[in-house]
Amino acid sequence: MTTTPTSTRHFVLASRPHGAPTNDNFRLETAEVPDLSDGQVLVRNEVMSVDPYMRGRMNDVKSYVPPFQIDAPLEGGAVGEVIASRSDDVAVGSHVVHGLGWREHAVLPAKGATVVDTDIAPASAYLGLLGMPGLTAYVGLTAVAEMREGDTVFISGAAGAVGQVAGQIAKLLGAERVVGSAGSAEKVERLLELGYDAAFNYKEKPVAEGLREVAPDGIDVYFDNVGGDHLEAAISALRLHGRVALCGAVSQYNATEAPAGPRNLFQAIGKGLTLRGFIVGQYPQLAAEYRAKAAGWLAEGRLRGDETFRDGLDGAPQAFIDLLEGANTGKMLVRL
Amino acid sequence: MTTTPTSTRHFVLASRPHGAPTNDNFRLETAEVPDLSDGQVLVRNEVMSVDPYMRGRMNDVKSYVPPFQIDAPLEGGAVGEVIASRSDDVAVGSHVVHGLGWREHAVLPAKGATVVDTDIAPASAYLGLLGMPGLTAYVGLTAVAEMREGDTVFISGAAGAVGQVAGQIAKLLGAERVVGSAGSAEKVERLLELGYDAAFNYKEKPVAEGLREVAPDGIDVYFDNVGGDHLEAAISALRLHGRVALCGAVSQYNATEAPAGPRNLFQAIGKGLTLRGFIVGQYPQLAAEYRAKAAGWLAEGRLRGDETFRDGLDGAPQAFIDLLEGANTGKMLVRL
Repeated sequence: MTTTPTSTRHFVLASRPHGAPTNDNFRLETAEVPDLSDGQVLVRNEVMSVDPYMRGRMNDVKSYVPPFQIDAPLEGGAVGEVIASRSDDVAVGSHVVHGLGWREHAVLPAKGATVVDTDIAPASAYLGLLGMPGLTAYVGLTAVAEMREGDTVFISGAAGAVGQVAGQIAKLLGAERVVGSAGSAEKVERLLELGYDAAFNYKEKPVAEGLREVAPDGIDVYFDNVGGDHLEAAISALRLHGRVALCGAVSQYNATEAPAGPRNLFQAIGKGLTLRGFIVGQYPQLAAEYRAKAAGWLAEGRLRGDETFRDGLDGAPQAFIDLLEGANTGKMLVRL
Repeated sequence: MTTTPTSTRHFVLASRPHGAPTNDNFRLETAEVPDLSDGQVLVRNEVMSVDPYMRGRMNDVKSYVPPFQIDAPLEGGAVGEVIASRSDDVAVGSHVVHGLGWREHAVLPAKGATVVDTDIAPASAYLGLLGMPGLTAYVGLTAVAEMREGDTVFISGAAGAVGQVAGQIAKLLGAERVVGSAGSAEKVERLLELGYDAAFNYKEKPVAEGLREVAPDGIDVYFDNVGGDHLEAAISALRLHGRVALCGAVSQYNATEAPAGPRNLFQAIGKGLTLRGFIVGQYPQLAAEYRAKAAGWLAEGRLRGDETFRDGLDGAPQAFIDLLEGANTGKMLVRL
């Protein structure tokens, strides 16, 4: 039996990063575990997620996701075991996924927690393949980029949590050719094992050159996780009526000045290109559809994803810092 | 009765402009009028069109419209009277619109000429309101930007041939508010007469400031004829799920270096924006629908457009040069 703890630890945002975040931007604090109110559950977090989008929330700018507040606990995806419950909907012993990461214990309304089935996959998969990154890949390819059978698809940041899944889903949905970029030879190798037709290391050569080599006849869809040079190279490579899903711009998250946009955007006119941005929360109607499909693909062994684990809450800031530098292959997670 | 001439005059591209075109880039030549082959017609051009897109065709770059060739006659929209015909489909005396402007007489296959109804509107309208610019406005708003009733719509270059029509069509299709930018106080005044709810002179203040004043609550659709600062200001002003029709970038056509793209393109992610480029030729299926609607609106007096005329073929290059500087209100035309 698990005893309810009286105190726990969490990270707060100590200061806003200027450029790349450092450990000084984070502060570990001890807090009391409050008594549960009616309808609440207490979760012992087992795994928490660090994601590139969190960097944006550390800036004090108006956006559709509100910024993190200084001295307030950080938030993010986490999975854990329910160790106390005042809700009939969520039993003690259940595993749940929820949005209060960056802490060892979370108290939240039961309706903010989703019970997960650990027979289908380990709980951590609900932060990756079966969670937000997987759904992001699915939404980006289908609703945003309107990928069609026979398309040639280019995915940047392809070895990341979203990119690994996106490449496999593109093939499952009938893409003729799927190519990717990643930041090391090992990652490129891994992409080929996961079913990418070709991939290149963007640190070895200009993106435009790498892309020409792996997709000499051009591309129909570009799934953008990186922005910058990658987006510019993709616009040049896109064929008539090509489509871009603007998902992330990890190359620019630590920029201290607004980076120049793609100099060749005017090509969108003659080629009739569509560039569409999205965040996964804008497509809630696709979540159930994706979960069903992904569970099937997982069971058939047709969808896989890597997890890069760090251990202990203390290391969470460094895990996040390293994520932005590309230290992960697949999903970056912190075991608590 | 019109006699068939034996010689005629046309402009060829003498050299490719570097930056803004000058008269030296054009050369007037005299040529024989060839005998008609079977199926051909001879047209005495009465009015020819100069259009911003022609600047792109003067560069030697691969595009979906092939570049003009040095020493070859220029091309572009024109209307005129058929003065000789070896086709049963097009009678002598008909007025036709076709693609061989920049010349006093044109010889072409009858299937390359479309007979126009001068009872509906003067022949010149088939180069503007009822022609390519009008269709461009319609396609951009409907198929490209997917404008919906109740939208707030911003149109740049609003006093140009496309912009004047786009603003009126947006209102006719149910836009709640239509605002525009133009390059002089007189043009702004004219936009208000044509039904724009508000407009500003972008030469008087930064575009972002002007746009905030006329659309303080933001915009849903941006019809981009200008690019550059206009596109950047629009991206900042767009609301959730806003849409951009990328139609032209007249601010950049004379640029000698690739201009920086919008520095705030990343906002497309959080706001779920769609930017879609197009050229009107990609939407042939909408031409008949537009002609029918536009003819009705014209007859009801609900659609109007200005024409800025220059006289004589000799002045065509200067008309084109001036067009790129914004000397026109509505459609820029040359009477031959």
